[in-house]
Amino acid sequence: MTDFIPKDPDFRARVEEDFAKQNLMQTIGAELALIEPGRAEIVMAKRDDLCQQHGFLHAGITTTLADTAAGYAAFSLMPKGAEVLSTEFKINLLNPAEGKRFSARAEVLKSGRTLSVVRSDVWAEDETGRWSMIASMLASMICLMPK
Amino acid sequence: MTDFIPKDPDFRARVEEDFAKQNLMQTIGAELALIEPGRAEIVMAKRDDLCQQHGFLHAGITTTLADTAAGYAAFSLMPKGAEVLSTEFKINLLNPAEGKRFSARAEVLKSGRTLSVVRSDVWAEDETGRWSMIASMLASMICLMPK
Amino acid sequence: MTDFIPKDPDFRARVEEDFAKQNLMQTIGAELALIEPGRAEIVMAKRDDLCQQHGFLHAGITTTLADTAAGYAAFSLMPKGAEVLSTEFKINLLNPAEGKRFSARAEVLKSGRTLSVVRSDVWAEDETGRWSMIASMLASMICLMPK
Amino acid sequence: MTDFIPKDPDFRARVEEDFAKQNLMQTIGAELALIEPGRAEIVMAKRDDLCQQHGFLHAGITTTLADTAAGYAAFSLMPKGAEVLSTEFKINLLNPAEGKRFSARAEVLKSGRTLSVVRSDVWAEDETGRWSMIASMLASMICLMPK
Repeated sequence: MTDFIPKDPDFRARVEEDFAKQNLMQTIGAELALIEPGRAEIVMAKRDDLCQQHGFLHAGITTTLADTAAGYAAFSLMPKGAEVLSTEFKINLLNPAEGKRFSARAEVLKSGRTLSVVRSDVWAEDETGRWSMIASMLASMICLMPK
Repeated sequence: MTDFIPKDPDFRARVEEDFAKQNLMQTIGAELALIEPGRAEIVMAKRDDLCQQHGFLHAGITTTLADTAAGYAAFSLMPKGAEVLSTEFKINLLNPAEGKRFSARAEVLKSGRTLSVVRSDVWAEDETGRWSMIASMLASMICLMPK
Repeated sequence: MTDFIPKDPDFRARVEEDFAKQNLMQTIGAELALIEPGRAEIVMAKRDDLCQQHGFLHAGITTTLADTAAGYAAFSLMPKGAEVLSTEFKINLLNPAEGKRFSARAEVLKSGRTLSVVRSDVWAEDETGRWSMIASMLASMICLMPK
Repeated sequence: MTDFIPKDPDFRARVEEDFAKQNLMQTIGAELALIEPGRAEIVMAKRDDLCQQHGFLHAGITTTLADTAAGYAAFSLMPKGAEVLSTEFKINLLNPAEGKRFSARAEVLKSGRTLSVVRSDVWAEDETGRWSMIASMLASMICLMPK
């Protein structure tokens, strides 16, 4: 949508280092697939231990992927030394989260000094390799600078 | 807020059976602490493997608890044979998710034939046993009846 | 995003007739600028009597435009005889609502039998004719069929 | 829920002065009915020119009331000189907005230095004087201090 200029040219290293500290990402087997200025993608293979009662990926895990991608999309544009925290998000679940692989793809709509707004969509890959969108999130991320 | 009359007198058994099938609840060590007509509570002890980069519970797990409690609060009022699915939710994260234990407490605001709207707040217990609210969710749940 | 096939070939006449019955649209001077299968646009000139305390368009009016465009985008795909109602929406206000004209542009993400999910962005036109996005909404619309 | 101590003892005068500058409030005939630390209520009589196609209050006006009450609930706790802006909100519409009078009642859940989170419910009064809840909002408000 927009071309963003990162404030920190080393944003990729900073995002990767931060991602590696997120224990939950390892617990659920999620990986950072893409990081560009204002954009991020997180991917994860389906796992039965992350499903709900009908065998679909639990909405909480779909949300985890979308929120994490949204956070790094915003973080990529923040200055060195900043920390990012989600302040709120809303997700619409469009279709049951069925598939062998899931991907959350986030792009920043607005990168403010304090608040960023990010759109983050989750896609599922079926057995034939076809991807379809299963959820859409709008999230607010806050930039915290150490005192 | 309102006194709800459950359509299915055996709603507790139905909820407990459904909860037991949610693999993710076992994966994260969450338990159903309360189920009343239109109300539910889910509790979980803090675990480092479910945290984000600053050592707080990941917002995706906070959301998982709130969503699951909201789903069962709505499900408790649905007729026998129904299935419940989240169609959307929004959560505001009020404070960092620090604590030794977390509890999501949901209550139905509106129980419609097709859609239910549920408020679900997440609380954290600190080392001294004091609880404080860390997040608030508004969720929509859909009632699906088998054909 | 997707090409939608309308269930009712006369959807345009149905949408225009419905729009004409919305008193609020006349009250605020809003017009239906575009209606295509799964897409709608509503436009409105700035008016001081619809502003908030800083002279920006009130967030409630920005929301009115986004919600109305979202409703007609969903309605365009519903069968003859259906009625549409908003069940929920969330809007992120990206920038102050300054401008001489405002436009809400909605597109359906998912058109279900009961529920539709719609993305609706609001744009503002400045004095030089340049448009920029000031808000983004995700909305759920329900399709009601007469008994 | 919580007892809030206002930072500015003259918060009532500040809120009333600000409310009087909101043109839209006069346009729709809304009044500030209550302002307490962290709480606000806005009331409005039904008017046909603010309705949608089925004769219910337009969801955008319901939202306008809820957002405005939420803004003043947050503003009541902000320091002298601050300005308040909505950054996002989500509303669930529980029941058709029928009634002779409407009231939005907001209470702050979290009053932060930069961001406040507010719950704002809208109620409708029927012909017999009975009030029922028709909508529930969760909103974020930002505190802006002049440089």
